[in-house]
Amino acid sequence: MTEKTTTTTTIQLPEPTLRRLPWYLAYLSTLKKSETEYISTTRIAEALDVDPSQIAKDLSFLGIRGKTRIGYQVDALEDKLRDFLGFGRRHNAIMVGAGSLGAALIADSGLQRYGLNIVAGIDVNVSLIGSKINGVEIFSPERLAELVDRLGVVIGIIAVPVDSAQSVSDLLSSAGIKAIWNFTPSRIRVPEGVVIANTSIYSHLAVMYNRLSLRDLQ
Amino acid sequence: MTEKTTTTTTIQLPEPTLRRLPWYLAYLSTLKKSETEYISTTRIAEALDVDPSQIAKDLSFLGIRGKTRIGYQVDALEDKLRDFLGFGRRHNAIMVGAGSLGAALIADSGLQRYGLNIVAGIDVNVSLIGSKINGVEIFSPERLAELVDRLGVVIGIIAVPVDSAQSVSDLLSSAGIKAIWNFTPSRIRVPEGVVIANTSIYSHLAVMYNRLSLRDLQ
Repeated sequence: MTEKTTTTTTIQLPEPTLRRLPWYLAYLSTLKKSETEYISTTRIAEALDVDPSQIAKDLSFLGIRGKTRIGYQVDALEDKLRDFLGFGRRHNAIMVGAGSLGAALIADSGLQRYGLNIVAGIDVNVSLIGSKINGVEIFSPERLAELVDRLGVVIGIIAVPVDSAQSVSDLLSSAGIKAIWNFTPSRIRVPEGVVIANTSIYSHLAVMYNRLSLRDLQ
Repeated sequence: MTEKTTTTTTIQLPEPTLRRLPWYLAYLSTLKKSETEYISTTRIAEALDVDPSQIAKDLSFLGIRGKTRIGYQVDALEDKLRDFLGFGRRHNAIMVGAGSLGAALIADSGLQRYGLNIVAGIDVNVSLIGSKINGVEIFSPERLAELVDRLGVVIGIIAVPVDSAQSVSDLLSSAGIKAIWNFTPSRIRVPEGVVIANTSIYSHLAVMYNRLSLRDLQ
């Protein structure tokens, strides 16, 4: 992927819009193979089961408008979406916890394609320290602040056991991290000004299990 | 973890409640070390930054009530939550896509602890077929239906490239899968009666990047 110097969005978008925009981007990337040049909101709407007027509204945040009866130019819309979402920029990140989930995320090349550049890992397990996962070196916790500073890390990712989540978050905040991506099922508190994103995989499991058990009753 | 034979919930809970219950469970597990016997909603509320009355309401779905001035018995509440959320039961799952993210999820022992039992993997990459990740064998796609049937698979997990997500979902549905856990940023459609859960890691990245770029402006 080529580095781009375009600016990312600087307006506070509603979270539902921000969650839908990547769907549109994902859908557009599937059109590449069919060499579709223009796409209408109606067709995107059919494919994604989203209201066409909602799509038009979401895309208007990008300052991009479709042509009447023709729609949006696929390549231009895809580029615009990628830039707008920040996927075209590099965001340096540090992974705290290089156990099963942490190591997994370090190894996921998909994150790199979406602009997340994991530059180092941290773990308390001495057998991991000094090892590399996907080219990313694992360091001991006391190196955290120095690494954040030296490597220009802006995002701290937390994939540690539940009872260490808050203390790791505190460490990251005091090291000057600007955003925390929390993969633990634990709720953590961050100082004002630090962005927090929670991806609680296990909460999604709970929702799925509940829906499954209801389905079995029918 | 010991197998339990208690029944999981059979009421349709509001999704926000289902998302909060795992936070409570995670918090309770951090109390074990301190040997706390009783916990009040007030203390849970302080720790998790959730309204105490909301917590009492969420927990009332479990048919469990705290004692006045004492609160909930920690062990009993933890067991009840785990059973209620289905984390104590085994749910057999098949992972479609054993690339970086898929392999990562197979290797994540955390999922096992939350009741997800990945029994097989599927990949189109011939160099992966026959190999094992964390003891889980990878098979070719034509084995899908047979494996689902023979291994009693109820959940299909999708971690394939975006443009294969829908076709894989269709395959899983026709193989008789009851729930699909979609890790791709793609929206997929499922037949009526099939449960769908979406975990779009990359959408969370988009939200985080947007909040970060706003923060930089301040």
